[in-house]
Amino acid sequence: MPPVGALLWRALRVHQVYGANTDVGKTILTTILCNSASKIWKDEQVSYLKPVSTGPQDEADDRCMLEKCFNLNRIRTNYQQTFFLVKSIIWELTQCRHLENYAPNTNIETLFQWDIPTSPHAAAEVSSKPIPTDHELLAKIHHHISQRAHQGSGWLFLETAGGVHSPGPSRTTQADLYAPLRLPVILIGDSKLGGISQTVSAFESLRLRGYDVESVLLFREPVHENYRYLADYFGDKYGISVETVGAPPARHENAKIDRESMAEYYNESSEENAVRDVLLQLDKRHQTRIARLEEMPAKAYQSIWYPFTQQKHLTPERITAIDSAYGDHFQTLQTQPPTSSPSPDINLLRPSFDGSASWWTQGLGHANPKLTLAAAYAAGRYGHVMFAEAIHEPAMAVAENLLQGLQNPRLSRVFFSDNGSTGCEVAVKMALRAARVRYGWDQDTKLGILGLKGSYHGDTIGAMDCAEPCTFNEKVEWYEGKGFWFDYPTVQCKEGKWVVDVPDSLKPDLGDGEEFASVADVVDVEGRDQAEAARKYEAYIEWTLETLQKQGRKFGALMMEPVVLGAGGMIFVDPLFQRTLVDVVRRSSRLFATTPASISPSQADDKTWMGLPVVFDEVFTGLYRLGRYTASSFLGVHPDVSVHAKLLTGGLVPLCTTLASDSVHEAFLSDDKSDALLHGHSYTAHAVGCQVALESLREMQSMEKRGAWDAFKSDGWVSPGSSVSDVIPRDANDSIVWSAWSRAFIDIVSHNAARVSGVWALGSVLAITLRSDDATGYKSSAALSLQTRLREGYEDGRWNVHSRVLGNVFYIMVGQTTSRAAVRELEGELTEALSA
Amino acid sequence: MPPVGALLWRALRVHQVYGANTDVGKTILTTILCNSASKIWKDEQVSYLKPVSTGPQDEADDRCMLEKCFNLNRIRTNYQQTFFLVKSIIWELTQCRHLENYAPNTNIETLFQWDIPTSPHAAAEVSSKPIPTDHELLAKIHHHISQRAHQGSGWLFLETAGGVHSPGPSRTTQADLYAPLRLPVILIGDSKLGGISQTVSAFESLRLRGYDVESVLLFREPVHENYRYLADYFGDKYGISVETVGAPPARHENAKIDRESMAEYYNESSEENAVRDVLLQLDKRHQTRIARLEEMPAKAYQSIWYPFTQQKHLTPERITAIDSAYGDHFQTLQTQPPTSSPSPDINLLRPSFDGSASWWTQGLGHANPKLTLAAAYAAGRYGHVMFAEAIHEPAMAVAENLLQGLQNPRLSRVFFSDNGSTGCEVAVKMALRAARVRYGWDQDTKLGILGLKGSYHGDTIGAMDCAEPCTFNEKVEWYEGKGFWFDYPTVQCKEGKWVVDVPDSLKPDLGDGEEFASVADVVDVEGRDQAEAARKYEAYIEWTLETLQKQGRKFGALMMEPVVLGAGGMIFVDPLFQRTLVDVVRRSSRLFATTPASISPSQADDKTWMGLPVVFDEVFTGLYRLGRYTASSFLGVHPDVSVHAKLLTGGLVPLCTTLASDSVHEAFLSDDKSDALLHGHSYTAHAVGCQVALESLREMQSMEKRGAWDAFKSDGWVSPGSSVSDVIPRDANDSIVWSAWSRAFIDIVSHNAARVSGVWALGSVLAITLRSDDATGYKSSAALSLQTRLREGYEDGRWNVHSRVLGNVFYIMVGQTTSRAAVRELEGELTEALSA
Repeated sequence: MPPVGALLWRALRVHQVYGANTDVGKTILTTILCNSASKIWKDEQVSYLKPVSTGPQDEADDRCMLEKCFNLNRIRTNYQQTFFLVKSIIWELTQCRHLENYAPNTNIETLFQWDIPTSPHAAAEVSSKPIPTDHELLAKIHHHISQRAHQGSGWLFLETAGGVHSPGPSRTTQADLYAPLRLPVILIGDSKLGGISQTVSAFESLRLRGYDVESVLLFREPVHENYRYLADYFGDKYGISVETVGAPPARHENAKIDRESMAEYYNESSEENAVRDVLLQLDKRHQTRIARLEEMPAKAYQSIWYPFTQQKHLTPERITAIDSAYGDHFQTLQTQPPTSSPSPDINLLRPSFDGSASWWTQGLGHANPKLTLAAAYAAGRYGHVMFAEAIHEPAMAVAENLLQGLQNPRLSRVFFSDNGSTGCEVAVKMALRAARVRYGWDQDTKLGILGLKGSYHGDTIGAMDCAEPCTFNEKVEWYEGKGFWFDYPTVQCKEGKWVVDVPDSLKPDLGDGEEFASVADVVDVEGRDQAEAARKYEAYIEWTLETLQKQGRKFGALMMEPVVLGAGGMIFVDPLFQRTLVDVVRRSSRLFATTPASISPSQADDKTWMGLPVVFDEVFTGLYRLGRYTASSFLGVHPDVSVHAKLLTGGLVPLCTTLASDSVHEAFLSDDKSDALLHGHSYTAHAVGCQVALESLREMQSMEKRGAWDAFKSDGWVSPGSSVSDVIPRDANDSIVWSAWSRAFIDIVSHNAARVSGVWALGSVLAITLRSDDATGYKSSAALSLQTRLREGYEDGRWNVHSRVLGNVFYIMVGQTTSRAAVRELEGELTEALSA
Repeated sequence: MPPVGALLWRALRVHQVYGANTDVGKTILTTILCNSASKIWKDEQVSYLKPVSTGPQDEADDRCMLEKCFNLNRIRTNYQQTFFLVKSIIWELTQCRHLENYAPNTNIETLFQWDIPTSPHAAAEVSSKPIPTDHELLAKIHHHISQRAHQGSGWLFLETAGGVHSPGPSRTTQADLYAPLRLPVILIGDSKLGGISQTVSAFESLRLRGYDVESVLLFREPVHENYRYLADYFGDKYGISVETVGAPPARHENAKIDRESMAEYYNESSEENAVRDVLLQLDKRHQTRIARLEEMPAKAYQSIWYPFTQQKHLTPERITAIDSAYGDHFQTLQTQPPTSSPSPDINLLRPSFDGSASWWTQGLGHANPKLTLAAAYAAGRYGHVMFAEAIHEPAMAVAENLLQGLQNPRLSRVFFSDNGSTGCEVAVKMALRAARVRYGWDQDTKLGILGLKGSYHGDTIGAMDCAEPCTFNEKVEWYEGKGFWFDYPTVQCKEGKWVVDVPDSLKPDLGDGEEFASVADVVDVEGRDQAEAARKYEAYIEWTLETLQKQGRKFGALMMEPVVLGAGGMIFVDPLFQRTLVDVVRRSSRLFATTPASISPSQADDKTWMGLPVVFDEVFTGLYRLGRYTASSFLGVHPDVSVHAKLLTGGLVPLCTTLASDSVHEAFLSDDKSDALLHGHSYTAHAVGCQVALESLREMQSMEKRGAWDAFKSDGWVSPGSSVSDVIPRDANDSIVWSAWSRAFIDIVSHNAARVSGVWALGSVLAITLRSDDATGYKSSAALSLQTRLREGYEDGRWNVHSRVLGNVFYIMVGQTTSRAAVRELEGELTEALSA
């Protein structure tokens, strides 16, 4: 079942009516809007939809219920019950004098109904009717309104129940529940005493969920005149107009007279200029919203210079207008073939699965309210405060969380910067200086790094210099690769087996590779440590280092992305090779320095770097991307410097941390200020980023602890017969190798020999290497047809999946909160697309 | 008058009581808290403070008013008025059965009182009493509570009026008004129908202003049982406990019986375990908050690696714990000498003016609610969405604003990155490639940049390479300055004259410099263009370039910070020199290339770069820092590439934009993807940053348009006799040279020959070069004593000013929203400190 998306049609204007409180006249004012719309747009249909309604269904029932309340009111003396019953009566008074009787030209519907006149969640709870899930409710609304849209032009008002945060049937509050629909909002203000506060707070709750409040409407109440204050407030701060309508007449005891006076009230109100103005403005904004979405690709094509994009190949058609995003999905503008005339009944927006996790950043879902609130809290508490010689709570807490979570006894210092690239520059500055100071090399000694072919650490020049020459950097004017990069064996699943592939050039040294039954066996580096492969890796690495030494080359650091090289092509490196490389570098001080300043193994404790400082770039692989807090645990290695970004902030704002050991830090201590690490960005450790990071880290740790991923783990990643809870000590992150992608699915894909040369999955990442006749590498287009096919779905019931490719490698990445059902749906789509 | 700061004492626990709505029982529950506290802490004093109270002052009046309402209620039939009067009665019922009679051991005070029982802003408006400003109100509260704190241990509950956003006397809503006090909050939940929504929204409004809600308390109402839902909600999402208290008994008509039953109710309620638990928890959190603030500097000393800091010189005592920030001020922990025993009656927090504008980023004040809401809106609408081949509204709108605001016909493309350093790397990549492609230089040609001595463009290696060797970079392992940097004349005010100083080494070529009556005369580059100095500059620059050419050096760009070099020491460069440098470079294509690919002046239009692409790094100087949207307008120059960050986001989150011309962009167009600008960060054009930038830019533009800075301009920066509105066309940003610092103050400082060698001010920046016997430059400590003195104020009534220094240059920077009164206060502090 595809996800429910936003609602936007050209000819049908759909608006959502929220109330600043219960009993603010939401239904009365919506009725007036319906009547007025019917008068202005005579040929169009006006609809009213109450997705969830509570209370008796017809007015007779209402009146009966009211009588009961009045009676109760008379006989009860308990203060609080009277209090609430009075409230209740007022509420029902408003409810029962509305729509059905006074909006003759409006098409009225309710989707879910409970008889008890209370909050939907409470009514649903005590009822025997099944409670719809949020998804079912949204799907029903979506279906209903889509049907309506097919019937042509008009207006539809979707009325909510109670206040903005009144819980829906499933207990999710409405502001959260309905957010994916992205409907423009008419906020009914509260005209009573205290109503200013209620209206402003309700607005803020909507605003921080990305709602566009287009209009504030309330009764023109003469005692408190809240509308005067609110008109200034919303006008000045948000440019939102506040309009008023006269309040309804007092209830008359004679039903006929009451009905007549109400009819007159509705008739007069719907003629008020204010109501007309609201509707005309809503209509205009509706057109503007669509026009803006449609013009943006062409404007962006003219004025935006895109990252990592050959602009010559760009066309406006290739640029996706993103209206919003929610959970795992973008809400994107449906583009129509330029030749077809605009069709009025196509939903202009569709959900598109964010298959690259927005460049590998998304973990807790787009527009996650907890992250929003965290960001807003820090913005409200600090804004940004400069970090030199200062400390604030979120920075302190993030530092503590990382130091504790990484379980690496070497790391003791946290340095903040803005993104993976700057964080890697910080890391390399730290490591090179530590080596130079320890080994007493002078300033003129040219130092390189040791790394792996295909490594990529970011786009600033210093980070680029850490990578071997490749497509990404070879034409950059100041790029100069500074290091040596090893070739290495890689891991993929092929025809059900997990294969360690040795590149041809290394076969004379490393042999022909190995096959394993499971990925867990590949990652069992301690078990494999004693095997022949380990000894071959060791000999090859030692020989290479000796050769480099003989050539007179000097190195200051070993720098790697542990387990998976991301931008280099989603390459799963044999973890045994990486582990062995670290081991050899650490015990081979003599290969890097011959001065007395080098520390011998006997002097080193488990916190002191040996040989060279080991830098792990976990920007992509860390913080649960591969299923664990740290990717270094797969190697059983404690780096001396560790870089973390992307998932660090759960996918909301940029932030990076570079952690280092005391033995690296010491190299910068001196009486000379110029020996310090003179690096720092204006927004270093900005409070918003730190608070969001803290929230993200805690949420992911809590998910791990409470077993949120156990269902995934049980899909083939733990041995048959043992349940997940048997094998996973919840507080360790190095005990199981698992993926959100099921083992059965990996198996199927790995057997698709016609199209697939190999596949792997770890944590939330899936990477499929496609067979291709083209040149492989970044410039290849082998995966493009798969990508294109997956982007076509939606109208046909398939998922629409947005993905990025790396040459002939097709990868897809889910979030840490993506549901198992969603991943299985994606597996279905992929299986089908791969067999097409 | 120093600003009002936060309230935090060791022995006095101060809490603020907010209500989720009006008439939720705020006063009743506060009374119960007071009574319970008196019972638990028998020897301590419990106080209740209502800063603003409306309605009659004693209960007799209350009852009288109530009678009136009841009568009115009976005679009026108008629905809406009845409606509101019923509400009103209920409200008053709650109000009049409270505190004075039932909290015998509580010290009760009101600071401002209006008789009319309505919202404070409305009551104040119709009253003849003077309305206190927000500052006066806060100052009075601060004074009152400080006095109370001097009396020893205890509790103080500060009760607000109505809901969280009910307006205070000045119309500012309470949530905004009281935020600077940083009091922990007890939120009284709404137990009525609809109360779930009201409580959650009220909480969110508080949260996004940085309030810490410590406890949610509400009536245990049995019909709707809101407390059940709220307990789950706040517990699960925020770890906040929700406690309940029984509702008060119904009112009895016999006053004596009513009073007795209420007394019994209060007595029983104050014994409830829930109330006790709330108080014990508040007490614990109070201790924890203080302990955490006090431990942070030592913890940070152990685990944070600070930017630009010689960690060896750091001590825990030098690290400032920042509790929060508001407007222009940090709220920092007062540190006491380690030997003194903790004194219970010192306010532990004090406001400290953020004199470096948090590394030059602050423009619209810390914790600006508009920026918070903008950030939260984008987070709620998008989270972050990947930017390659996609467009979203905030990115589009920021791009449009910059392209329009810069009024530079050359610029047509906007590239997003994360900070000034990455943005400068992007700029230099753009410019070098453009030059190489245009001039047909091969990949091996080593290209440098032309710049100015003392330039600084950021801390990543590529940005560092754009600067000449200096303290900042000379020890960085991979740094390699790639360019030539001109020496130049500088501008300062000395003894009332604006002097263009020529460095000794240049005097043979450029003469001895000039003197001007005003800074406007110095900046009048068009007027000075024809003068002798311009011809000398020109000749010197041409001769230098020719010499470099003869040496075989190749350059790919001219890169400068226009007008002011920031990190290099707040150097005001003679704008005529910069303008001349651009002119010479642009018309001297022959000096840079001799290949047929060079474009002759006749071929160039005003959008095509000539000679070399000109890059302006406006990260610090742009977007109103110097008083104008773009600093390039001071030079009358249109750069080909322009970099903007810092104030771009008004001081909240990192974001950078690099703008370029089509003629630069074209160099990257090719059929080969690897010719593209392969640069891009994960969070490129993140929605939160773009939305905040949009809000900031619009707000600053609106301030300019509505003349928000006219008062500053009239303080000596426009000619006497002409009013500001005469001389400033609001839509141009190149017509006046002004500063927030008054001309009279600059004059005074410039005459302090004993301590000051020169001073300048432009826009919000003030820089004073102090006389010093030490070596000048970054390592000098000449300004430290001034800095230290300014950090000592507060308890003595002086301002506490936090500043950063650059060697012997003391600078201070205000925000774009800092009030004129505040700047004048700072001028007073500085004048005094300089004459001490």
